[in-house]
Amino acid sequence: MSERFIVIIAGGKGERFWPQSRSRRPKHLLPIVGKSPLLTQTLNRVASLVPAKNTFVITSASQVRAVRSCCPGLAADHVVAEPMGRDTAPAVMLAALLVESRDPAGTFAVLPSDHVIDDQDAYLSDLEAAFKAAEASQVLVTIGIKPHEPATGFGYIQQGEVWKRVQRRSFFHVKRFVEKPPLELAERYLKSGDYVWNAGMFVWSLPTVLAALREHAPGLVAGMEPVRTVLGKGRPIQSVLKKVYPQLEKISVDYALLEKSNHVVVLPASFDWDDVGSWPAVTRHHPADKQGNVCLGNALVEQGRDNIVISDDGHLVAVLGVDDCVVVHTRDATLVIPKARAQEIKLLIKRIEATKGGAKWL
Amino acid sequence: MSERFIVIIAGGKGERFWPQSRSRRPKHLLPIVGKSPLLTQTLNRVASLVPAKNTFVITSASQVRAVRSCCPGLAADHVVAEPMGRDTAPAVMLAALLVESRDPAGTFAVLPSDHVIDDQDAYLSDLEAAFKAAEASQVLVTIGIKPHEPATGFGYIQQGEVWKRVQRRSFFHVKRFVEKPPLELAERYLKSGDYVWNAGMFVWSLPTVLAALREHAPGLVAGMEPVRTVLGKGRPIQSVLKKVYPQLEKISVDYALLEKSNHVVVLPASFDWDDVGSWPAVTRHHPADKQGNVCLGNALVEQGRDNIVISDDGHLVAVLGVDDCVVVHTRDATLVIPKARAQEIKLLIKRIEATKGGAKWL
Repeated sequence: MSERFIVIIAGGKGERFWPQSRSRRPKHLLPIVGKSPLLTQTLNRVASLVPAKNTFVITSASQVRAVRSCCPGLAADHVVAEPMGRDTAPAVMLAALLVESRDPAGTFAVLPSDHVIDDQDAYLSDLEAAFKAAEASQVLVTIGIKPHEPATGFGYIQQGEVWKRVQRRSFFHVKRFVEKPPLELAERYLKSGDYVWNAGMFVWSLPTVLAALREHAPGLVAGMEPVRTVLGKGRPIQSVLKKVYPQLEKISVDYALLEKSNHVVVLPASFDWDDVGSWPAVTRHHPADKQGNVCLGNALVEQGRDNIVISDDGHLVAVLGVDDCVVVHTRDATLVIPKARAQEIKLLIKRIEATKGGAKWL
Repeated sequence: MSERFIVIIAGGKGERFWPQSRSRRPKHLLPIVGKSPLLTQTLNRVASLVPAKNTFVITSASQVRAVRSCCPGLAADHVVAEPMGRDTAPAVMLAALLVESRDPAGTFAVLPSDHVIDDQDAYLSDLEAAFKAAEASQVLVTIGIKPHEPATGFGYIQQGEVWKRVQRRSFFHVKRFVEKPPLELAERYLKSGDYVWNAGMFVWSLPTVLAALREHAPGLVAGMEPVRTVLGKGRPIQSVLKKVYPQLEKISVDYALLEKSNHVVVLPASFDWDDVGSWPAVTRHHPADKQGNVCLGNALVEQGRDNIVISDDGHLVAVLGVDDCVVVHTRDATLVIPKARAQEIKLLIKRIEATKGGAKWL
């Protein structure tokens, strides 16, 4: 019988949770919610499904050290560093080659590293159903999240007819993938009940995904051929990745594969999910005081409402007369931003990047 | 001929410029404006008027160490620590006794330590005129500041008829002292042209002020008699001050003396002045960028207007999308407060005081 694998994609630029997150320590390496880093939580969540010898983490060269320290249970060659970011399609291809080198008939899930999922049972039973479906049929399974607000920060997947029931769960054909929509459209999607959020969770058998990649992304498959050769010889791949990656097209697996294939099915998740996309997400996972302030560490708010104030190392952050703001202090940098503009933190990152010596803080 | 003395009152609780100012390091010990602490600037300003041997600084026990380090030119017994704050009347009485121990016929100026005065020539010529007037007549001279806005944070002095011209400057009788007025009243005062701000600058001869104190504050004079005795013997006064001070009434020299005496005259100052009363004052002494932001140290504002952002030690403070705020980072504490509420910082200090271990940050 073919084996199951899990490949966790742990990339990210570390911008959205600056100054806690940095380019070398992005969101998945932070205990933004809970006591351990989100990546560790993700690994723990899937530990009962697949053994460590079948679990891989793909990350970036700048983060690999920190990632390894979050994955004490994984062998060194199970944490693989991409030499540079090339979006998700090359990462998925790399995942496929890693799985192929262990079991050419294997089935694997690609999962993000930095989401919060509280209902572990539902999560595992959804993954189990998705694995079953992928093992039985030549389909690319995505797990979509039922939307509970007209979010404009996610891509959506439109469901079609029921494809099949597996493990008493309904899988649907996919009508189409849609990019992050404007608000009115998102509201229509939400109302229709036909759409789920694209959470970047995929399950497929190796033969199926390789066939699809060969059809829709032949350049990627060809470009990664040297990696396959080195893996086939059981040799380390870091240096071949360094040669190969600069040539690869920077493209997401959604664009490169899923939007083009007719074999994609979607399983609406039975668990809820939080992608913890920016600072305001913190309020969903920590208790607030009567004025709606979430204060973590040595932080206090006087005569202010609905702020998030975070400090570390015992440094005191004291706020008076301010509402709806995020104030975050770290050892070497402090952020002040209105909650409503938290998504625009990238503007600040750009400004810091452009400042002489600014990279030091990123 | 009688000698001239200057006594600088360097007290204060270090609240208004928290977290830069602390109880042990209040405003006058900080280089809030200019490159040296305000106390040092004050000492330098009067150095040409009176020699160091005739200059005293009265401060509090908790600050005396830091104050001494700002006054390298003064002998140790010229920096005198009050064992506890008892407002300004006891400090003035102490000043009188210090002067008396050097020259019973002396004349002295009592000056605040923490104001910014750019026009040194005008300041010195006003002081010269005030000394001349105090030497020639038995009057209590106050120097008042011509108001340029309807400030509600100062006491006002209403001028009466001209008393005398000295050094080609007009001194006025004082009709009355008024406490910090509400805005409408302050506006009327400003319009009338009859009022000046009470800046806590006094010049008088020792015999005149002692006579006035004996008449209007006999309890204070009697209470301080033991200090006079010890000073008369040329012995250190710290231990007698510790015995005497707890018994003294906590009262300002305005209440205790000036509002009661008929011998007060006022000289409207020919210099401009800034009491640097709270964080927004910083904008008057540092250049702003095109968006009106004053950024000191490693601080930056993106898409925000009219903020004051101050950092130290190279710590980065980054602000996005915020207007009219004060953000101050120091080694162990950070403040965020709207400019318009900077006067209310005391509420925050109280809150910190009430926090377990909070005194550490004050």
